[in-house]
Amino acid sequence: MPRPAFSLDQLRIVLIGTSHPGNIGAVCRAMKNMGLGDLALVAPRCEIQTSDSIARASGADALLIGARRHETLEAAVADATLVVGASARSRTLPWPMITPRALGESLPAELADPQGRVALVFGREDSGLTNAELQHCHRHVHIPTNPDFSSLNLAAAVQVVAYECRQAWLDSGEPAGAGSETAPFGIDWDHPPASHDDLERYFAHLERVLIATGFHDPQRPRQLMARLRRLYLRARPDTQEISILRGILSAVEKRIDGR
Amino acid sequence: MPRPAFSLDQLRIVLIGTSHPGNIGAVCRAMKNMGLGDLALVAPRCEIQTSDSIARASGADALLIGARRHETLEAAVADATLVVGASARSRTLPWPMITPRALGESLPAELADPQGRVALVFGREDSGLTNAELQHCHRHVHIPTNPDFSSLNLAAAVQVVAYECRQAWLDSGEPAGAGSETAPFGIDWDHPPASHDDLERYFAHLERVLIATGFHDPQRPRQLMARLRRLYLRARPDTQEISILRGILSAVEKRIDGR
Repeated sequence: MPRPAFSLDQLRIVLIGTSHPGNIGAVCRAMKNMGLGDLALVAPRCEIQTSDSIARASGADALLIGARRHETLEAAVADATLVVGASARSRTLPWPMITPRALGESLPAELADPQGRVALVFGREDSGLTNAELQHCHRHVHIPTNPDFSSLNLAAAVQVVAYECRQAWLDSGEPAGAGSETAPFGIDWDHPPASHDDLERYFAHLERVLIATGFHDPQRPRQLMARLRRLYLRARPDTQEISILRGILSAVEKRIDGR
Repeated sequence: MPRPAFSLDQLRIVLIGTSHPGNIGAVCRAMKNMGLGDLALVAPRCEIQTSDSIARASGADALLIGARRHETLEAAVADATLVVGASARSRTLPWPMITPRALGESLPAELADPQGRVALVFGREDSGLTNAELQHCHRHVHIPTNPDFSSLNLAAAVQVVAYECRQAWLDSGEPAGAGSETAPFGIDWDHPPASHDDLERYFAHLERVLIATGFHDPQRPRQLMARLRRLYLRARPDTQEISILRGILSAVEKRIDGR
């Protein structure tokens, strides 16, 4: 695959005033799952390495141990070229607000310079980011939640935003329509899709066998073959599947002939 | 906003063999955050309502209490018109595999019939879905994770898939480019963006004041006004911001005149 337009190492997760160690552990797991490795903790209100945080990190201990500690947001984002704060929708002073998807889509441009750094800032479990903290951010990112139940768990919020960042990273390294020529469903497959010829030979074979069985009368077709074609074409059989289907037909023919 | 093409009530989350009550609670919270309300538990390997599950549900108790219990996957998905199982990438027998985004994008068509039901099936924390369970699914959904650390927390996996479903639901009710005419940054804003005339009047006022202050010499412009225009235009000021900027210029002028 072509080289992605940026590196996930250019992204930093910043947690401010977190009060539950388990949430920090769960954030580490979510980050590592999405390929992110740079975590900064600003004035955490709890111990970092506890049995709960280690359990929830579930193997992402290195992030937990390696997390940098800062007293202030300013220190944690000093080298960032773009600072994005997670925010609920309504604020007294509206701020440039983007969706997680739009954030992801902006990353190839934001991080085209290898010196570019994007900091993604998440606030306290109970009260989020303060207005002063939000006003340190170039943009606010709002995860579109159910308005009647909008408060996401901290790690869930990081998960969604990190997922969109990873998705954008993957997309940036993939030519449009990649894989569509070789794989029936876009992601890797063990056998190539059957060719048009393969399929037509199969349909001809199928029709012969259906006639031979007496099920199909070409004088009264009743759209039978059309419906079968639609079914198989929708399934996009691979070469091996077609071999199997042909094998079945041959076995049926042999049985009919032998009668 | 136009009516979305489907209802989130047509989506069901199915958890098989979950062993940690806290994860079930966290799934309930993630579901409610994304507007989903139909939860089915197949042969859970733990108590459902515990202090941990209630704590992690964080107010989504109704989903926890209302979750239907089934002995088998078949019973939980009996009325589903599409069954999608969460799966890691490599299986002995490849199956139609889609990304969470492609799943979301397929929902308007899958659920166009109000009788349509999509079941999203998630397996055990330790071992996922069995091959037999995966073979009950029309499609498998794979969340693109870091290949070196690919196992997502159960609630995190539900969060990502439910997020894509909600995003698709929101997108289906929104005309392309919605809001771009009235909001400078795509999401709601308190004042309309300034008109071209507003901006030009501001730039003219600004230039007058800059000249009056002696900062700007129109005979030696050095791209000053061009750079200022670029700055303000990039920011897309709203009408109130322009009023404020104009107010500042007037105040400066008054001060200069009074000298």
